[in-house]
Amino acid sequence: MNRNLLTLVITSLLLTGVSYAQTNTQILEDFKPSSLNQPDQQYPQVNSQGYARFQILAPKAQSVVVSLGLGGTSGGTPLKKITDSLWAGTTSGPMEEGFHYYHLTVDGGVFNDPGALNFYGSTRWESGIEIPAHDQDFYALKDVPHGHVHQILFPSKSTNTSRRAFVYTPPGYDKDKSSRYPVLYLQHGWGEDETAWANQGRANLIMDNLIAEGKTKPFIIVMTYGMTNVIRPRAGGLRSFDIKPFQTVLLDELIPYVDANFRTVANQANRAMGGLSMGGFETHTITLARPDVFSHYALLSGGTYKPEEIKDKSKVKLIFMSCGSFENPDGVTKAAETLKAQGFNAVSYVSQGTRHEFQTWRRSLQVLAPMLFKN
Amino acid sequence: MNRNLLTLVITSLLLTGVSYAQTNTQILEDFKPSSLNQPDQQYPQVNSQGYARFQILAPKAQSVVVSLGLGGTSGGTPLKKITDSLWAGTTSGPMEEGFHYYHLTVDGGVFNDPGALNFYGSTRWESGIEIPAHDQDFYALKDVPHGHVHQILFPSKSTNTSRRAFVYTPPGYDKDKSSRYPVLYLQHGWGEDETAWANQGRANLIMDNLIAEGKTKPFIIVMTYGMTNVIRPRAGGLRSFDIKPFQTVLLDELIPYVDANFRTVANQANRAMGGLSMGGFETHTITLARPDVFSHYALLSGGTYKPEEIKDKSKVKLIFMSCGSFENPDGVTKAAETLKAQGFNAVSYVSQGTRHEFQTWRRSLQVLAPMLFKN
Repeated sequence: MNRNLLTLVITSLLLTGVSYAQTNTQILEDFKPSSLNQPDQQYPQVNSQGYARFQILAPKAQSVVVSLGLGGTSGGTPLKKITDSLWAGTTSGPMEEGFHYYHLTVDGGVFNDPGALNFYGSTRWESGIEIPAHDQDFYALKDVPHGHVHQILFPSKSTNTSRRAFVYTPPGYDKDKSSRYPVLYLQHGWGEDETAWANQGRANLIMDNLIAEGKTKPFIIVMTYGMTNVIRPRAGGLRSFDIKPFQTVLLDELIPYVDANFRTVANQANRAMGGLSMGGFETHTITLARPDVFSHYALLSGGTYKPEEIKDKSKVKLIFMSCGSFENPDGVTKAAETLKAQGFNAVSYVSQGTRHEFQTWRRSLQVLAPMLFKN
Repeated sequence: MNRNLLTLVITSLLLTGVSYAQTNTQILEDFKPSSLNQPDQQYPQVNSQGYARFQILAPKAQSVVVSLGLGGTSGGTPLKKITDSLWAGTTSGPMEEGFHYYHLTVDGGVFNDPGALNFYGSTRWESGIEIPAHDQDFYALKDVPHGHVHQILFPSKSTNTSRRAFVYTPPGYDKDKSSRYPVLYLQHGWGEDETAWANQGRANLIMDNLIAEGKTKPFIIVMTYGMTNVIRPRAGGLRSFDIKPFQTVLLDELIPYVDANFRTVANQANRAMGGLSMGGFETHTITLARPDVFSHYALLSGGTYKPEEIKDKSKVKLIFMSCGSFENPDGVTKAAETLKAQGFNAVSYVSQGTRHEFQTWRRSLQVLAPMLFKN
C-alpha cells in the first residue's frame, strides 16, 4: 500500500468515524424518565427530540424487542445486551408527540415493561410512554381547581350485572349544590375500556384547564365500556358488530342512572355523544337511531356524517368530526363542508403531525369542549 | 426374568402408576380463570381447593418461575415447558384464601403475568390472583345499591402539587343532598398506594354490602397515599421514617378539602383513622399526636396501643386492633384486654387462617365498620 493510498484509507476511516460521531451527536443526551413511568423508575426515558430509550433487566434472555417503532410502521426497536444483565436500546428516530402503547417481546413471549405504567388498549393492559408534545400544557396537571372522577357501578338488567362507568364532575360540583350541568357521553375505541379517556386521554385535566381559563362551559363527562372488544377485526369486523346491547345499556340504564344520581340538565338539548375510532362508529349509529336523546355529535377519528343520514335537521345542534393529519384529513374536512352547505352547524378539526392515537383525541376534546352546549 | 419376577415388576409399575394417579386426583380438575384476570384471559386459574395454575407463552425462554408459593415461604412455583411455546405449572399445594400479589421471573428478569390484572404493591404494579374464600360473599359485587369512588386531586401547598385521593361515598349520597356523614381515613401499607383499599381491598363493595344489609351506619371513606414508599426496609426501616410530611398533608390539606367538598360531619367525634401494616403505624402516631382530630382508631396488622400512650381517655371512642391468625394474634388480643381493663372501648379481631395479606384486612374492615360512629 503506498502512502497516498494509506492516507486515503485512513482519511476514509476518520471520515467514517466523524460521520458516525455526527450521527450520534444528533441524538441529544438530555433523556429523562417518561412521565408515565412507575414511581422511581428511571426507564423508559425520552429526550427533547422525541427519541425513546429503553432498558430492561433480563440476564438470561436471548432476545428483547420493544414493539414501539417509528410512525407505528417499523418492526419495533430491538434491544442489545449492554451488561451481563441489562438490555438497552433507543428508537431509530424521534417518535410522534403524545401517548403511545407498547410492549416487550422477551424470548418470544409478550410482557409489559416493568418500568412503565399500564394502560388498557388492544384488549389488554399495555405499557405506555409519553413523548412530550409542544402543546402538552393543555393536558398538564396544574395548580387549578380540579373536578372529580367518580367510579360508579350502575345496575344493568339487560346484562344482569352492575356495570362500571366513570363520571367527571367539574370543579365546584360538590360545593354548589344547586347548579345543574349538561352531559357529554364519551366513548373509547376498540380494545380500550372505560378507563381510557381519563388515563390515556387526560380528559379530566383537559376540562379542569379549560374551565380554569374560562374557555368552556363546565359540563359532566360520562365514560363507560362500549362493549366493543367482542369484535375481532379479522373476523368480520364492524359488520359483525351488533350495537343493540350497548345501545340498551347506554340509553335505558346508564343515562337514567346518571340523570337520577347527578345534577344533570336531563334533556336532549343538553346531552352530547362523542367517541374515538370505534366509539365514533357507536356515536354515529346511536345518534342517528335516537335523535331524541342527543343534540351534539362528535366523531374523533371515527368517520363522518352525511346530510342524507339525518332525518330532522332541527334536532342537531353540532356535528364535530376530527382526525390526525396522518389519517384521512380530507375526509373530515369535506364532510364538514358538505354538511355546512346543507345548513348544519358542522366543524372539522385536523390534529397536525399525529395519527390514530391519543394525542389526536386529546386535542380534539380540547377543541370540541368549548363548542358544546353554547345555546 | 421369570414369570413371577415379571409379574412383580409389572405390578410395581402399575402400583406406581396408581399411586401417581391417586396423587394427581387429589388435585381436583375444576380449575377456573382467576376472578382477577384480564378480560378473556384463561390463565392463571384456581381450583376449588385453592391450587393455582399458571400458563405463560415464552417460546425461547430458558426458565419461567412464578413468585407465588405456599404460605409465602417457598421459593415460588417453577413452570415447565409443555409445548414448543408454553410454560405451565401448578402450586405444590392449596394457597391461602384471598388476594395474593405475584410476578414472574423470565430468564432472570421480573415481569408481570400477561393474563392477570395488576395491583400496586411492593412499590410496583404487580400481578394479582384471587383464591376464592369461604366467606367471599361479603366482598362480592352484588345487585345492591352501590356507592361511588371519587378520584379527587386536592391542592397540597406543603408538597407543591395536586395530590390524589379516593373518596368512597355511600349509596344515595348524590341523591339525598341534605344528609351529612362521618368519615374514616383509611391508609394502605408499605409499598402500596391510594388505589389499594378499593382495588385489592374491595373496601367499596364491603361497605355497599354491609349497608344493604343494614349492618353498618353509612359513612365516607377517604384513601390517600401515605408517602410510605420512601422507606427502604433494609435501610433503617420505620426508625428512619419522618411522619411529619404526611401528617401535614393529611391534617392541614386533605381533611379541610374533604370537609369543604363533601357532606361530612366535620368534628372529632365523627372522624376515624385506620390503617393496615405501615398505615397502622401512621394511624398510631398521628392519632396519639392529635387526639383532637380523630375519635376512633384502627390498626390492621399494624401494631397495638398501650393505655399509657393515651393522654385523654375521654377523647377515644374506639380502639380496634386486628391481624391474621398466622401473624401475632396474642399481641392484639392481650393489648385489647389491657386497654379494656383500663376502661377503654377496645376490640381485637383475629382473621382465621390468614397472614399479612389483604384477606385479613378485608375481614378486619367488615368487622370494624359496624363498630364505628355508634354514638
